[in-house]
Amino acid sequence: MKLITAIIKPHQLESVRDALERFGISGMTVSEASGYGRQRGHSEVYRGAEYTVDFIPKIRLEVLVDEPDAANVINLIVQQARTGRIGDGKVWAVPVDEVVRVRTGDRGPDAL
Amino acid sequence: MKLITAIIKPHQLESVRDALERFGISGMTVSEASGYGRQRGHSEVYRGAEYTVDFIPKIRLEVLVDEPDAANVINLIVQQARTGRIGDGKVWAVPVDEVVRVRTGDRGPDAL
Amino acid sequence: MKLITAIIKPHQLESVRDALERFGISGMTVSEASGYGRQRGHSEVYRGAEYTVDFIPKIRLEVLVDEPDAANVINLIVQQARTGRIGDGKVWAVPVDEVVRVRTGDRGPDAL
Ligand SMILES: Nc1ncnc2c1ncn2[C@@H]1O[C@H](COP(=O)(O)OP(=O)(O)OP(=O)(O)O)[C@@H](O)[C@H]1O
Ligand SMILES: Nc1ncnc2c1ncn2[C@@H]1O[C@H](COP(=O)(O)OP(=O)(O)OP(=O)(O)O)[C@@H](O)[C@H]1O
Ligand SMILES: Nc1ncnc2c1ncn2[C@@H]1O[C@H](COP(=O)(O)OP(=O)(O)OP(=O)(O)O)[C@@H](O)[C@H]1O
Ligand SMILES: [Mg+2]
Ligand SMILES: [Mg+2]
Ligand SMILES: [Mg+2]
Repeated sequence: MKLITAIIKPHQLESVRDALERFGISGMTVSEASGYGRQRGHSEVYRGAEYTVDFIPKIRLEVLVDEPDAANVINLIVQQARTGRIGDGKVWAVPVDEVVRVRTGDRGPDAL
Repeated sequence: MKLITAIIKPHQLESVRDALERFGISGMTVSEASGYGRQRGHSEVYRGAEYTVDFIPKIRLEVLVDEPDAANVINLIVQQARTGRIGDGKVWAVPVDEVVRVRTGDRGPDAL
Repeated sequence: MKLITAIIKPHQLESVRDALERFGISGMTVSEASGYGRQRGHSEVYRGAEYTVDFIPKIRLEVLVDEPDAANVINLIVQQARTGRIGDGKVWAVPVDEVVRVRTGDRGPDAL
């Protein structure tokens, strides 16, 4: 299994999430983050306000997936998160040894 | 070494933390997250309020452990986080190449 | 590639970030966390207030790096985050299978 993490623009979350659901992903975890990137010094409009400070609000999305789905899920997130403007973010994958669903104790792909 | 991450219900944190301490775990990191899962559409009571929206407040717990402790720590978190109701969460483990304790520069299991 | 994660004291973030920039790191992601560690029971001053509670505000820093830079980046974070007082934090590295830059679709070291 793999853990796919994406740092994306907050406005792109809904479109990413909808595409993941259509793909059949039933769960994901979202949290708030601040990004420092090449945009530093550039400004970005977020909720109507312009940011010229050196950190930018981002969304961190985490999705545990079965190995055969990893490449498709990465591609789908990249497509949906892309606006073509600087600061669109990163997507990465790390290997996962074990996953457990807490309610049932299921492990492996059955835990997803 | 392993990094164990758990997405759990906020109300279960205290019981998980207490059990980890009794097991001898001296450190852990906690942050806030929002979960999208099969509970979508269902409602959940959190701090007296009912959530029917499609994201649910969750706690993200991270614990670095030495390899021989990993299976026990996973089991312990799963036991303590379980309420038996939908949305109890996930626990997963990823391999860790290196850990350093900042204050001393200790590495490996000594860094924990 | 590697994902380096650091849990550090909030006051040390600026010095860590400046050192990473001087090293040539052009991006990083920051979020808020609460730490439970050996400081439990001790108190810590944060933004003028003293914390005696058992969780302490920490910063979680994440930096994706190319393999040859990993050891240097870890050392640099450890140096800059160190105050010599209890609770200085942890730095760890996990293996990363794949990184994509969302705007361009670049993969691997070119995605950083
Ligand atoms: N090396 C990195 N490690 C961790 N997070 C990163 C890294 N680089 C960028 N990020 C995260 O991704 C967000 C977007 O990054 P950034 O704008 O720097 O990407 P980029 O590679 O410069 O792409 P672009 O050329 O489109 O700007 C940043 O705000 C930050 O949260
Ligand atoms: N594939 C996933 N990747 C990342 N996080 C997930 C994933 N699935 C679930 N989660 C996280 O775990 C939380 C609980 O998940 P969820 O209720 O969907 O689990 P479940 O597997 O459907 O279990 P149950 O059958 O008990 O509901 C979610 O709110 C979300 O934060
Ligand atoms: N095993 C662990 N897993 C995950 N995070 C940890 C772990 N241990 C400590 N941390 C995080 O690092 C922060 C600092 O940790 P802590 O003060 O316990 O380190 P320590 O190893 O006891 O070092 P020191 O001896 O300097 O106090 C904690 O507040 C917590 O966020
Ligand atoms: Mg950029
Ligand atoms: Mg569910
Ligand atoms: Mg300590």
